[in-house]
Amino acid sequence: MKIAVVRERTDGETRVAATPETVGKLIALGATVAIEKGAGEASRIPDAEYKTAGAEVAATAEAALKGADIVLTVRRPGAALMAGVNKGALVIGGMDPYGNEKDILALAKAGVATFAMEFMPRITRAQVMDILSSQANLAGYQAVIEAAGLFDRAMPMMMTAAGTVRPAKAFIMGAGVAGLQAIATAKRLGAVVSANDVRPAAKEQVESLGGKFIAVEDEEFKQAETATGYAKPMSAEYQAKQAELTAQHIAKQDIVITTALIPGRAAPRLITKAMIETMAPGSVIIDMASERGGNVELSQPNKLVEHNGVKILGLVQGQNRVPTSASQLYARNLLAFIETLVDKKAKVVAVNWDDELVKATVLTKEGAIVHPNIKVDAPAA
Amino acid sequence: MKIAVVRERTDGETRVAATPETVGKLIALGATVAIEKGAGEASRIPDAEYKTAGAEVAATAEAALKGADIVLTVRRPGAALMAGVNKGALVIGGMDPYGNEKDILALAKAGVATFAMEFMPRITRAQVMDILSSQANLAGYQAVIEAAGLFDRAMPMMMTAAGTVRPAKAFIMGAGVAGLQAIATAKRLGAVVSANDVRPAAKEQVESLGGKFIAVEDEEFKQAETATGYAKPMSAEYQAKQAELTAQHIAKQDIVITTALIPGRAAPRLITKAMIETMAPGSVIIDMASERGGNVELSQPNKLVEHNGVKILGLVQGQNRVPTSASQLYARNLLAFIETLVDKKAKVVAVNWDDELVKATVLTKEGAIVHPNIKVDAPAA
Repeated sequence: MKIAVVRERTDGETRVAATPETVGKLIALGATVAIEKGAGEASRIPDAEYKTAGAEVAATAEAALKGADIVLTVRRPGAALMAGVNKGALVIGGMDPYGNEKDILALAKAGVATFAMEFMPRITRAQVMDILSSQANLAGYQAVIEAAGLFDRAMPMMMTAAGTVRPAKAFIMGAGVAGLQAIATAKRLGAVVSANDVRPAAKEQVESLGGKFIAVEDEEFKQAETATGYAKPMSAEYQAKQAELTAQHIAKQDIVITTALIPGRAAPRLITKAMIETMAPGSVIIDMASERGGNVELSQPNKLVEHNGVKILGLVQGQNRVPTSASQLYARNLLAFIETLVDKKAKVVAVNWDDELVKATVLTKEGAIVHPNIKVDAPAA
Repeated sequence: MKIAVVRERTDGETRVAATPETVGKLIALGATVAIEKGAGEASRIPDAEYKTAGAEVAATAEAALKGADIVLTVRRPGAALMAGVNKGALVIGGMDPYGNEKDILALAKAGVATFAMEFMPRITRAQVMDILSSQANLAGYQAVIEAAGLFDRAMPMMMTAAGTVRPAKAFIMGAGVAGLQAIATAKRLGAVVSANDVRPAAKEQVESLGGKFIAVEDEEFKQAETATGYAKPMSAEYQAKQAELTAQHIAKQDIVITTALIPGRAAPRLITKAMIETMAPGSVIIDMASERGGNVELSQPNKLVEHNGVKILGLVQGQNRVPTSASQLYARNLLAFIETLVDKKAKVVAVNWDDELVKATVLTKEGAIVHPNIKVDAPAA
């Protein structure tokens, strides 16, 4: 059973799908591991450390992939790379499945079984395999670090002989994994932190981190807040009141971080140009959804733009700016999944195609796309 | 009594010597205040805010300075700028007095009374005027923000479903004002923080901020630690043992921030190239003394260099990266000093030349250099 890891080919991608720690554990599962030379470099993992962990360091991607039974990857690899792998090899990683159907079809035609880690069910057993959470957590941290770097003032309150410096006011829009870590990090740095979320039930989590939840707390809200399971969407009237409150709140903020991403869809617009123009010069906005169209009008992926003295950073894949931590967690996510896909005694790949984790994540198998969410309208070119 | 503030002319200088807050208070002292257009821009203070506070916004530096009785500045101004001020006008600011004797002589010849805020005595009464402390505090904060931005990993310990991310290890060399704020900020961000200082008495301060003090704690150290007043220098034997311990400690650090500056002298060399080479790839060093020759071999002012995978930033005037906060505190420092230099009832400048604050800070007066620390060997060109 050979497991291959190659250097990521996507621009700006700094992570790697295995670390010396996970290589050791993959070998303990009965695998041999081949790593393309330099694959860990951007994550500060020298080839020598992989060797020490027991991996073979291959001079080229082709050499690493030749005869592989499992390919571990951070981003969806090109189908051409799969030429030398064993028939039916498992290709496991982040596949960014929506909007890339043709590339996925090409992987199907290459004969590999592709698994999209993004589709891992959010059940207890699979938490340890949840790449969206592990990476969003770091991206949320990094968003605050970037904001602090761009901000013209110190974040914490400082009591000095020359008087007090007031703390920064930071508003985190969206209290998912990234948002919650952004709240926690901004609190650490001493900011006065507020947050919102379309789910009234998020109020408790925000407050448990010391943030103030910004919401119109009327009867409708109170009922939704305590509802169990999936809440019904809030009324249009409520949403209008909430939008008004949010706009007023943004005008008073020093730092705003937006985190609203919906898988497979364009990012919702949370901040308009008019709202930016209500903010004071020197304020900072970090848009964590810029590569999906942006939560913030004027934001651009991987760019810092300034409008009326407000700095707006389109932070793309923030976890790539802390690649050593991101690779560490990502590689563990993959390892945990692989442990369910192999027979340790026989030291072979042994996929249980009926396992709910497998059924949820497998995109391609035996030459075809097999995932219900991925549809190819026209035949691939 | 006219007080003038001009835009700073030094490259990279983002601060301004008065804020709308201090302008209001200067006017309350009986002054009129003229601000050069755009002087507050880099500190995010629009001209309109100065106007609202009661200042006149002048189109040029010359217009602002014409007939001024007091000139407030962040950095030492060129003597040519002083052509239009009143005879004997007070010029108050950071004068960077050592090594710039000719420029100071030129200010003397221009007929102004120059005050170096750096020479403010460290006595209780003058704490509120202490620009070195107010600015070093912010620079120490910023050093950690820069380090976090450059660091390839998250700073805090993170307990996630995919396991634990270990916290960063940060070592702060020098526990003065900048060092203590760096310790506090790195602690905020969740790092495991250690620090050292040539003064054994600093141990208590470091520990009060949650840092571990790194020192050979032998009998000599214990005696020095509890000594009152100025301690005698440690023995050569002690210093050698301490250097050895420090070198071993640095090899295990993720982030090192050096803060050792001695006024009027070259910065002491704390980290050699050989020591850098003991650090892991991805480690970060911030040298806060790079413009004085550097605490760190290889560091360069305002540059990020990488050696063996270790990033080394020569951070110059770190407070200039948080200019809004820095200007706020700096302007208050100046205001507090000015309050001692004017007669509020008569609304005129009224310097008590026998005041210890004046005697300690005045560099030039009536055409000559009058400060004992500033000596001009040759006549100015």
